[in-house]
Amino acid sequence: MRDRIMGPGVPPGTPATQELAPHFSQWVYESVFADLYDRPPLELKTRVLLTMVALSVQGRMAQLRGYIRAALNVGWTREEIIEAIVQLAPYQGVPATHDALAAAKEVFDAVQKE
Amino acid sequence: MRDRIMGPGVPPGTPATQELAPHFSQWVYESVFADLYDRPPLELKTRVLLTMVALSVQGRMAQLRGYIRAALNVGWTREEIIEAIVQLAPYQGVPATHDALAAAKEVFDAVQKE
Amino acid sequence: MRDRIMGPGVPPGTPATQELAPHFSQWVYESVFADLYDRPPLELKTRVLLTMVALSVQGRMAQLRGYIRAALNVGWTREEIIEAIVQLAPYQGVPATHDALAAAKEVFDAVQKE
Amino acid sequence: MRDRIMGPGVPPGTPATQELAPHFSQWVYESVFADLYDRPPLELKTRVLLTMVALSVQGRMAQLRGYIRAALNVGWTREEIIEAIVQLAPYQGVPATHDALAAAKEVFDAVQKE
Amino acid sequence: MRDRIMGPGVPPGTPATQELAPHFSQWVYESVFADLYDRPPLELKTRVLLTMVALSVQGRMAQLRGYIRAALNVGWTREEIIEAIVQLAPYQGVPATHDALAAAKEVFDAVQKE
Amino acid sequence: MRDRIMGPGVPPGTPATQELAPHFSQWVYESVFADLYDRPPLELKTRVLLTMVALSVQGRMAQLRGYIRAALNVGWTREEIIEAIVQLAPYQGVPATHDALAAAKEVFDAVQKE
Repeated sequence: MRDRIMGPGVPPGTPATQELAPHFSQWVYESVFADLYDRPPLELKTRVLLTMVALSVQGRMAQLRGYIRAALNVGWTREEIIEAIVQLAPYQGVPATHDALAAAKEVFDAVQKE
Repeated sequence: MRDRIMGPGVPPGTPATQELAPHFSQWVYESVFADLYDRPPLELKTRVLLTMVALSVQGRMAQLRGYIRAALNVGWTREEIIEAIVQLAPYQGVPATHDALAAAKEVFDAVQKE
Repeated sequence: MRDRIMGPGVPPGTPATQELAPHFSQWVYESVFADLYDRPPLELKTRVLLTMVALSVQGRMAQLRGYIRAALNVGWTREEIIEAIVQLAPYQGVPATHDALAAAKEVFDAVQKE
Repeated sequence: MRDRIMGPGVPPGTPATQELAPHFSQWVYESVFADLYDRPPLELKTRVLLTMVALSVQGRMAQLRGYIRAALNVGWTREEIIEAIVQLAPYQGVPATHDALAAAKEVFDAVQKE
Repeated sequence: MRDRIMGPGVPPGTPATQELAPHFSQWVYESVFADLYDRPPLELKTRVLLTMVALSVQGRMAQLRGYIRAALNVGWTREEIIEAIVQLAPYQGVPATHDALAAAKEVFDAVQKE
Repeated sequence: MRDRIMGPGVPPGTPATQELAPHFSQWVYESVFADLYDRPPLELKTRVLLTMVALSVQGRMAQLRGYIRAALNVGWTREEIIEAIVQLAPYQGVPATHDALAAAKEVFDAVQKE
């Protein structure tokens, strides 16, 4: 299931995490993806968008870019992703929405080049 | 559309906002609900869950309770709401998930009594 | 100067801080109020409003109520305080503004009764 | 090990979590306490204080109270807990330290009555 | 009025926002600047400083740089801007003040070169 | 004592702070390090790790890197620093732990080159 979210062959976590804390990469793989994501009744597609929102509110940009790409992977369109980010503005604030749209543009541009 | 989210007859904003800043209650009504929520291509049902998530991450409990109720109003089941909150734990942290589940229980109990 | 901000005779910090960490109450008194507040070129009145804003963004409600009262003490009107909180909505988010207006109403009501 | 942190017989999570999401209470028990806490080379006593700090910075008060009690359980003195909270003031801000000291006072008073 | 804040000819929002969500740039222009900023009794000059503070507390650096420049545009001196950021340290924390001063230096240096 | 934390000869604060607000660098030096850090009964080594945790939760990356280096300076091993960051994941969230591990890797690599 993680392959469907992150794309096939994308290693878990970040390079720093894999190098410094491989047991934690493994923990995320097993305890987060296997135990928490793979449950009824919420669809995977919905789950990925919720995670994307949480990361935008927190301003965790590296992970946010990863989940914008994940949102594309599980079937959300660019327009839907943009709308989700825009809609958050009254809650997370306009600056957070500007930041998340900048992250979205980076991901969309990178995907187009691949 | 705001009636579908908040329930019919629920006044906009909070009592304090209505008393101290009625122009702001009006602004939220027009600028947030009419301008930002009522747009394709994202479904209203999805939008409400995204907002609920943003409020949980921020720890804004009064508004979170309002949007848990809104999530019920637009058709999410209790099980789906619980799953959404639980899934957020690795991103927002376990304490935020405990807090949001406490808010959910309050709302579910209040709805049952009505 | 602290008397002008907090009102005459209001003890520094909170009851818990005074009991558990009197040296910290003293530190706030000397290191924050004497060293950082009492400097040109920014007016005390402006400084108090800036602090009020910071507390609203952070959602630290007990201290926010203290600084809404402080804003009244140094000469801001209720209308100006309300406008400051409302203007923050696009940056801190609508929920934070609702929360801060609720705090303002509590303070305004308490002041009226005194 | 969880008994040493939380005290014997204290149920995992909150009442709301146990009722609405028992599988999540179980996940915290197994994936957080068993997998992440019980590892060399960091001592349990140190881990509990670090967690207490994280909760203070986040302003998650219910969980913070739980971990102030946990800090007492694993052998930190009241004076050390107070010093840890006071030292955080320049990083988390003075208001967060006031809030955490208020939580500490609640816990210390409750422990004294038991 | 937006020209007075941002400088004449500065386009609304960020490049990413203009490209991905032009309707949102327009919304910010109309709903934030026209509806919320342009109201008595708070002066524009005060409003800009309050916004600058909110962005510093949130750590939204791109927008913070924009509002430090805006503060210069509406008449605050460098010394006043620095004092505002320094005064926030006990509330937002010393690290946030270091970050905001780094942003201020970038803006001041860029303005000097123009 | 500050030399023991930051390393001998490391100037206080950041270059921007030293240039724009030297009185604030001085204030941090005297009011934070001398007044708050140098007190019984908490050991300096423990204090540094607590500060590191607070900075990770806040996502203040420049200061976090400074305190990861400080943790090495006062005698924590790389393995202990990594464990502290990993343990925080269920509280601060997995993304914050990934970010802090990336900061740790930068510091460890820089130290190795020196």
